Amino acid sequence: MAAAAAAPAATSVKADYEALCKKLKEVSALSGISGLLGWDEMTMLPAGATESRAAQKAALAGVLHEKQTEAELGELLRRLQAANLEGELDAFELANVREAARDYKKLTAISKDLAQREAELESRGYQAWVKARQESDFSAFAPVLQEWVNLRQEKAALVDPSVPVYDCLLDDYEKGMTAARLDEIFSQVKQGLVPLLAELRQRGQAPSDEWLKGEYDTKQQAELCNKIAVDLGFSLDHGRLDVSVHPFTGGTHPTDVRMTTRFKKEDLTEGITGAIHEMGHSLYEQGRNLEYDGLPVNSALGMGVHESQSLLWERMVGLSRPFAAYLLPLMRQYFPQLPADKTPDDLYAALNIVKHPSMIRVESDEVTYPLHIILRYELEKALIEGKIAMEDLPALWNEKMKSYLGCLFGYFPTYSLGAMYACQIFQAAQRELPGLDEDIASGSFGRLKGWLNEKVHKVGSLHTSGDELMKAVTGAPLDPQIFLDYLKHKYTELYQL
Amino acid sequence: MAAAAAAPAATSVKADYEALCKKLKEVSALSGISGLLGWDEMTMLPAGATESRAAQKAALAGVLHEKQTEAELGELLRRLQAANLEGELDAFELANVREAARDYKKLTAISKDLAQREAELESRGYQAWVKARQESDFSAFAPVLQEWVNLRQEKAALVDPSVPVYDCLLDDYEKGMTAARLDEIFSQVKQGLVPLLAELRQRGQAPSDEWLKGEYDTKQQAELCNKIAVDLGFSLDHGRLDVSVHPFTGGTHPTDVRMTTRFKKEDLTEGITGAIHEMGHSLYEQGRNLEYDGLPVNSALGMGVHESQSLLWERMVGLSRPFAAYLLPLMRQYFPQLPADKTPDDLYAALNIVKHPSMIRVESDEVTYPLHIILRYELEKALIEGKIAMEDLPALWNEKMKSYLGCLFGYFPTYSLGAMYACQIFQAAQRELPGLDEDIASGSFGRLKGWLNEKVHKVGSLHTSGDELMKAVTGAPLDPQIFLDYLKHKYTELYQL
Repeated sequence: MAAAAAAPAATSVKADYEALCKKLKEVSALSGISGLLGWDEMTMLPAGATESRAAQKAALAGVLHEKQTEAELGELLRRLQAANLEGELDAFELANVREAARDYKKLTAISKDLAQREAELESRGYQAWVKARQESDFSAFAPVLQEWVNLRQEKAALVDPSVPVYDCLLDDYEKGMTAARLDEIFSQVKQGLVPLLAELRQRGQAPSDEWLKGEYDTKQQAELCNKIAVDLGFSLDHGRLDVSVHPFTGGTHPTDVRMTTRFKKEDLTEGITGAIHEMGHSLYEQGRNLEYDGLPVNSALGMGVHESQSLLWERMVGLSRPFAAYLLPLMRQYFPQLPADKTPDDLYAALNIVKHPSMIRVESDEVTYPLHIILRYELEKALIEGKIAMEDLPALWNEKMKSYLGCLFGYFPTYSLGAMYACQIFQAAQRELPGLDEDIASGSFGRLKGWLNEKVHKVGSLHTSGDELMKAVTGAPLDPQIFLDYLKHKYTELYQL
Repeated sequence: MAAAAAAPAATSVKADYEALCKKLKEVSALSGISGLLGWDEMTMLPAGATESRAAQKAALAGVLHEKQTEAELGELLRRLQAANLEGELDAFELANVREAARDYKKLTAISKDLAQREAELESRGYQAWVKARQESDFSAFAPVLQEWVNLRQEKAALVDPSVPVYDCLLDDYEKGMTAARLDEIFSQVKQGLVPLLAELRQRGQAPSDEWLKGEYDTKQQAELCNKIAVDLGFSLDHGRLDVSVHPFTGGTHPTDVRMTTRFKKEDLTEGITGAIHEMGHSLYEQGRNLEYDGLPVNSALGMGVHESQSLLWERMVGLSRPFAAYLLPLMRQYFPQLPADKTPDDLYAALNIVKHPSMIRVESDEVTYPLHIILRYELEKALIEGKIAMEDLPALWNEKMKSYLGCLFGYFPTYSLGAMYACQIFQAAQRELPGLDEDIASGSFGRLKGWLNEKVHKVGSLHTSGDELMKAVTGAPLDPQIFLDYLKHKYTELYQL
């Protein structure tokens, strides 16, 4: 203390950075284990073991929290942020320090008490929601939801009181995104989509998928989808394909990505598009840069970008005309009962029906889905900003209470952002990879995967926002017009407007 | 410090005990996770993910070590051991304090440096062994083995310099056992077995298993064995059955016991007896007392007792005459090609052939196996006591170097102890459960399982040694004569001596 005015201790930046990396890698390994506990719970765990698994998850979460908030980690970050890092660290290394500091700040801002109240409310809230839903009684759920809103506001005030509440929450799921930017994007989408949907409804000629109706053995479906996943580039050396009630992509590490699918015997195409969707998530995970293994720069940029990778493969590739040329012969190999006279164009049309265009539905097609998301976004933002009263919520929108649980407030917009990112990234890929359509039609997906590996997967969290990533990959920030043009062009033709 | 002479802080024994349990349960949950990492590695892990799994295991092992050696835990144990616990804690609670203190003492005795040298040598030693074995060059492996012996001696001196080195190491695997007691047991076994084996070899008429030769679909074998496991009492609600290259029983908790088996299409009986063996381990795990969930009293008493449970089911039940009456009709259901004229007695005889009685072999039958173990025991004890020189080892016994790796020194005796415990426990069960043979012949295993649950499984580590457990369950410490009489009686009849 007496020597406080003397020169700072001669700890070199490099040594501090190495010490930081060691700690971050330990946290990453423990997070990987947490991924295994989750995957195993969904696919393997015996029914009678849920309590012991909950205890295991809680114990590991406690350890992770201790490690992520320990004072020594904070001290390393403080020193590194105070030091002049120019010339000492490269862009990826700088991003590691930035992201680690961001996570540390967020995690240490919240008191243990608040974290426990959140966990308690999450469990109690779910039970309250289930009961309220069974009894169609929103008033029984409203107090819990109000508690949740209050807790989120409390959290945002602790994490960063200098930004609007919704922005602070949004940042958990979509780094660098703000409500102002979302308003701009979503209002443009709404203006373009509403008339397109009206036109589809009034004048469109829906294609037919009658010829796809039938029964399809689910084991055969699983084999077909595994073949597609491997064709698209999923590495079985670095991942597994399993079946679960709720399809998801998880795992423990970029070399151990675990993707699950589900199949219904009466619906062949849902299983295929679902599998391609998860495969897109998996390729993002498998594509990370192992040079930065276990470090924050190597994590996903955000939920929106993750969703952009699943939707790029599902929609831009899987629902495209060239893909149908690859897919139809393959479907016939596994299901010879498919009518012989149908062409890839028939399959393309059938896969792209805008279902029930007169109803707003969750898990709907690519045209109506964004409107559904925008509705949720507007309501949750108004709630968190205190602009609407809880009791008015059912009147405003009484369909889906589930959406107001769990990871709510900041999470939903990422769904639609993903669709728009996907469209813009794919347009850039088409520009840079001449003959991409022919590749896809012939089942050669390697160039596209390689391009995404370089442009998106390996840069992980190097950039500070989705817009920055879009600039680096496509030359411009997210432009919703690209998405609108794509939809308009595609459906004008398909529905013969 | 000034008040050091005043009364101690009024921390109640109960409060300290509760605080201890909380810490122990956390460690238990983390150990359960470690079990999942191991199971997953053997059954599910993609080939390209071994490095990341190694990092995950190391990270979790580090956390476990931190938790198991933290000063606060030591302080709680110190206070509890200094307090008068009579009347405050019951027998199970006292055993928790005793076992926790024992583990803490062992773990904190070793320096971090020694633990790291051990881990390093284990990995380097394995590679050296593989190479030496390929080149049949013991001299290339001898220095590593000598290092291993030295490290074990160093460890024993740190853990408890007041007992002989071998006893200290033995205690890791078989609580309360000593070399003096082992010498006593094994010399009696040797004296009884050697003449029996000689007689079998000279005068015995080996039964025939020719009629069992053939090809058996491995999927059908797996289904048959799953049926047997469930009949024997394995709960699928609290465990899983899978296939792996090396059969083992693992899992994360008594409610999540994971057993694996393997099958060869040319050997029907090996798959069945192997599955029954693992099932015995599984029943021990599933049978633990959940009232003491996550506490040390609820852990296995030792490797010998664990092996006693697998061998009780494998040998006392699975290789018994009444079991053959249950098994043969079941085998016929799954494999109708089995000859119709064979009887349960023929099956009983075929299952109990003493294979190659002229050769000493690992994984041999119940008569020759103990001699094999005794050989190992005598050699490893002489090595660790410095009574034989490393360079004489190949001459003394040059068959199996693998045995001298990993968990060596103190581990091997538990194999044969298990067989003897099993025999004595089963004899007690026969005494206390009249009609047990008829139960087994009709496929009713519930009474035996229930008896084992009460007598052995639920008492976990309540007792301080295998001898104490034997006294509680059978009325006397381990008596090798029971094992010898069993073998003599069984094989005199089978081989018509």
